[in-house]
Order: sequence, then structure tokens, then C-alpha cells
Amino acid sequence: MAIQKIAVLGAGNAGYACSADLSLAGYKVSLFEFPKFKANIEPILKRGGIEITGQAREGFARLQKVTTNIKEAIEDAEIILVVVPAFAHKFMAEKCAPYLKDGQIIILNPGHTGGALEFAVTLQKLGIKKDIELAETMTLTYATRRIGPAQVRVFILVKKLLFAAFPGKDTDEVIGVFKDLYPSVVPATNVLETGLTNINAVLHPPGIILNAGWIEYSKGDFSFYTQGLTQSVGSVCEALDEERVCLMKTLGFKPISLVEWYNMTGYTPLKNVSISEALRASECQEEIKAPSSMKHRYIVEDIPYGLVPMASLGNMLNVSTPTMDSLVNLSSLINRVDYWSEGLTVKKLGISDLSPDDLNAFLQEGKG
Amino acid sequence: MAIQKIAVLGAGNAGYACSADLSLAGYKVSLFEFPKFKANIEPILKRGGIEITGQAREGFARLQKVTTNIKEAIEDAEIILVVVPAFAHKFMAEKCAPYLKDGQIIILNPGHTGGALEFAVTLQKLGIKKDIELAETMTLTYATRRIGPAQVRVFILVKKLLFAAFPGKDTDEVIGVFKDLYPSVVPATNVLETGLTNINAVLHPPGIILNAGWIEYSKGDFSFYTQGLTQSVGSVCEALDEERVCLMKTLGFKPISLVEWYNMTGYTPLKNVSISEALRASECQEEIKAPSSMKHRYIVEDIPYGLVPMASLGNMLNVSTPTMDSLVNLSSLINRVDYWSEGLTVKKLGISDLSPDDLNAFLQEGKG
Repeated sequence: MAIQKIAVLGAGNAGYACSADLSLAGYKVSLFEFPKFKANIEPILKRGGIEITGQAREGFARLQKVTTNIKEAIEDAEIILVVVPAFAHKFMAEKCAPYLKDGQIIILNPGHTGGALEFAVTLQKLGIKKDIELAETMTLTYATRRIGPAQVRVFILVKKLLFAAFPGKDTDEVIGVFKDLYPSVVPATNVLETGLTNINAVLHPPGIILNAGWIEYSKGDFSFYTQGLTQSVGSVCEALDEERVCLMKTLGFKPISLVEWYNMTGYTPLKNVSISEALRASECQEEIKAPSSMKHRYIVEDIPYGLVPMASLGNMLNVSTPTMDSLVNLSSLINRVDYWSEGLTVKKLGISDLSPDDLNAFLQEGKG
Repeated sequence: MAIQKIAVLGAGNAGYACSADLSLAGYKVSLFEFPKFKANIEPILKRGGIEITGQAREGFARLQKVTTNIKEAIEDAEIILVVVPAFAHKFMAEKCAPYLKDGQIIILNPGHTGGALEFAVTLQKLGIKKDIELAETMTLTYATRRIGPAQVRVFILVKKLLFAAFPGKDTDEVIGVFKDLYPSVVPATNVLETGLTNINAVLHPPGIILNAGWIEYSKGDFSFYTQGLTQSVGSVCEALDEERVCLMKTLGFKPISLVEWYNMTGYTPLKNVSISEALRASECQEEIKAPSSMKHRYIVEDIPYGLVPMASLGNMLNVSTPTMDSLVNLSSLINRVDYWSEGLTVKKLGISDLSPDDLNAFLQEGKG
């Protein structure tokens, strides 16, 4: 069955890029945004579409529907693409739940760490028993930013993207459908493999925390990746990456290092260099500015939905994560939020009592 | 007995200020620098003295002696002022040891955390049994920087300065002598009270680590205290300060908070404000630039001789120090040095097996 109708949930940078690129590809796209953030869709309603430039499809894209009504957005969709920061996954699951129908496919793009599991736990708690497929990508399909009213620019279209369904036994079936949208996807073992290939959590926290003074003094007026990712920042990213890789190995996954990942996805032309070198050579990210404050998703998403679940998994598997712990501690002080309790833990994901073998079995087969 | 001859060991910013200010006060000052750092004293030898401006005595100061020969520098001195970064204390103790004489007073200005104890342990290990008095200040008597060849500027002359001898029972005797040089000194209980009033270790590590990217990108071209100490950096300082204060309370000392300290010493006119506000109002420090790299004493001194001994003491006293631990972890990654093993621990200071009561007794009475 060829997909025709896609709902895109979330009208941030990623929602703009997804909606425009997939509309130009010929799909009928409904774009949803919460009424609270209606300002995000007003420029699209005004211009009648989105202008997209850069590495994906280019042109002026007319969407099927642009709405703040979630029922309208998802009722006819064959694929529901959730393109919101990780802290909104649970809320989005709650909002979708009443209107889901048998046969729909929900894909978190991306899942971050624990995204699909949290989505599944949320639907389960609400007693939703529809025949839904649930999957996630390891990262967003694009590096992208809005550059004006109803204008979005794609700096990079990711060349290779890990993808897994929950339960993992459904991955092959779901990826078959999703590949029409994004030929770059390749199957992963399960959603913990995609979740642990969360490079944002390795790059963003050191980048924002080790530049806190500069960010607050300049309101983010520098290039995050090519100016802010200096040698020391890179050294901390490297230590984080080693801890992430160690978690992946402990669970039997084949890890991809951050630099390999960066090269594989197309973010950097370099191989076998330090993280700082790889990033400073990332021309496609030169235009991406630093956050203008510390209440930014580089912390508020990547700490509680990146480093906290990873460190919590480390604690469960006896993998030491001192660098993750240090950055979670400092972020908590900086934003005066206890991210250890706010964040997504193995306990909240319902997997805290499983052995590594049982965990992999659960991720493959799902409940019972 | 009125003091006449003073040896100043170390010709950095502090050595310049001490030598010049005390020479202008009428003392006969010998300034020592290691042959390896001879470049530090060459401008003084060339000009025949040091030009000093700012908040201490002002003028052109002629010194009694400027030398790379430690024996010459200290043999006649009644007071030996050690004004070197903490990482050089042990080495300085070893260099002085053969030439020390009964009756001399050695004062670490400042001791940082564990300075006088490390000095004492070093002399003891070398079998030195001279009748020496050993003491330390809580911080340097000046905020000062060299501003040109043989030129030094004092931004601030500290208004109130805790001072303790080791053993503490000698404090009253030694402070009587030292007060002639610096009327600002007041007695502390013992050298752990001065050592735990180490504000550098609370300010410098967050300031340099949370500005790592800016420092490396700009080579330190911004005002460390008035531009770099933003709200987030201040929040981390506050958490560090709470841990330091908790250590002091556990040992029965009356703690001074960083902001109280800053106001008491004269660094800021403000009271009852946040650390970030206090620092940004510190006009006297406006001219102090950020470090030009991460291999700076704000890390290489304040981590291993500030936060490591404090965290190590916390571990011994069951006081939790997650912020100290986080900054030591990140510094270690940044400079690729394991500061936990390089730094000064309670074990290295020979006090790791003492209960809080025994510890205070030892600090008061000395060995046996």
C-alpha cells in the first residue's frame, strides 16, 4: 500500500522542513501545532505554504492542512510523524490517544533516548489498545532551521539513519513503508539502539554548558558548532561518547562513535579526527547559532531525555557514567531544576527490573 | 622585635606586588625566583626596581636583592613570604629546607587549601627539625596583575584577611609579627579554617569551565569577572559555596559566604545579592582578563589544590560534594589530567584517619 496521507505533529524547525519536503514529494500533509503555539503556523496560513531551500527538495510547498485541531490532523493519516522535542512526546501521546485508529503508523522523528518506549507506556496507561505501529529514528532526518516567516532552510539531509520499531520484530514491516519517505533509513535492532545513538545528547550539553558565560553574555551570537565547539568542549564530548559507546556495547549493540556518525550522516567530510576537528569542519552547520539562553532544548531536552535516561541505564547495567552525571548536575544547578527527578529514567520507562537479556527480549517482542 | 628583612619567594603578579609594597613600607626585601623562570625578574634587574600603582603603596620600589639563589634570598630573612601558586608549595618547601634557620617565620600568602599542612608534611619528610613558625593567609593580600615590564598594579588591598599558624596554638604569636606588614589580618582557628575560606576555588573553576569555549575561541579576550561571571556561572558558584560552607560547619568553623567574603575584603560594595551580581559589580576586577587557555592556574591550581582537597575532606567527613566532584571530573577531561590523583587529598596531608575532633586537636597542637 503506497502511503498518501501524512500528519506532521509539531511546527518547529523540524515540522516546517518535514511538511514542506514531503509535500513537494507529493504526499498530502497535515501539519498540527498546539493552540498555545499557534504563532508557529500563522505565517504558513498567511502565505498559503512554506518556502523550503537547501539540501532537501526546494520550492514553495502547499500543505493539505495546517491546523491546531489534532483530530483533524491525524484522523485520515496513514503515517503520523511526531517531530517535537523529546519533552513533548508524552504530552503528544496523550493528545493523539483518543483519535488513533487501527493500522496507523506513528514515527518519532527522532525518538531521542527512550522516546518510543515513553510513547508506548503513555498509550498503555491510557488503555489504548488499537493496532498501532510505533517506531523512531535515531536523529532528525534533517539539520534545519526556520530562516524567516514560512521559510525553512535544510542544511543537511541525513544520508544514513537508524530506524527501529517497538517491538523490534515489527521493524522490517514498518521500515518498508517509511523508506518511501526517507530512503536513508536502515534498520536497527530495537529502540534502545536508536535511543543510544542519540548524538544530540553528546554534543549539545557540553556545547551549551561549557559556553554558558559566552551564551549569556552574547545572547548566543556565535556559531555553535564551528566557533563554540573548541578543543576542551570536544574533549568532554569525547568522554561522553565513550560512556555512550560503553552502554551500547554492554547491551550487545554495534556502536557508532560520534565522529563516525557525523561522517556517515553527512555532517562532516572528515574521518578519524577529534570531535572538535570534525565539528569545526562541519560547513553545513556554520550558520547554526548558539542558544540565546540556558533554557534551551540543548539542555531542557538533551539532559532529561538524553543524558538522564543514559545515566540511569548505566546505573542499572553497572556502567559508570561520571561525565554524564557531572553534566546533569551542572545543568540542574544552572536551570535550578532537578533533572535527575524530572528526566526519563529506566524506572519511568518500566524497564528498571530487567536483566540485559530480558531487556533485549522485551524490546524485541513487546509486552507479554 | 621589629621585622627588618623579608624574603619574597616567587616573582609572579603577587611576588611583584608584595616586594614593591613592602619595600616602600621600609622593609629590606629579597625577591627570589627559580632559575627556570628567570625571565620574571629580568625586567626588575634592568630597571633597578618595580613601579607599583593602585590601591597599595604607590611609587618606584628599590629592592634589597633580586635573585635566583634561594640561599641568598632567605638566609637573613626574618619572615619568608611564599607567594606562589599552590602547585609550587611542595617544591618551594623542598628548595628552602636546607637553608632554614631557627626563628624564621614562613608565611604562605595564601595557603589555598592544605598549603601550610603540605608545607609542614614536606619539611617533616625531609627531617627538618628547625624551630620554624609556619602560617598561611586565606587569600592573597592583594588583587594584582603585572601590567608591563617591572610594573605592577594593585586593584585591591584586601581589607580583612583570615590568618592561622600551624599548629594553631602559635597563631597569636605569629600574627603579632605579621600585623606590622598587613594590619588587615585577623586570627582564624587553624589552617583548615583559612584553607576552607578559599574563595578562588569557588570562583575560578566555574568561571573558567563554563566559559571554556569562549576562552579558547577568544584567547581570553574578555573581562573574567564582569563579563564572564553570568547568572548560570554564578549559580554553579553558589552551589560550590554551599558545599564549602557545609564543610566548614561540619568542622565547627563559622563560615563566611562568598558574597560576605567579597564584601568584607572590599572586592564588591554589595551585600545580600547573588554571586553573579556581586561579581559584576566588582569594579576593581574589571580589568582582569579571562585566562588565555585552559592550562591556567584557575584550573591547574584551584582544582588540585582547592576542590580536590575540599571534596576529599567531604568524603572523609560524609559531606556530599556533587558540584565539586562534577567540576573536578570536567577539568580532568579538559586538561587530560586525573586531578583526583594529582591533587592534594586528606591522605597526602596525613589527616585521613582522624575524626573531626582529633583533626581539630591535631591542627591546634601539631604532632604529638
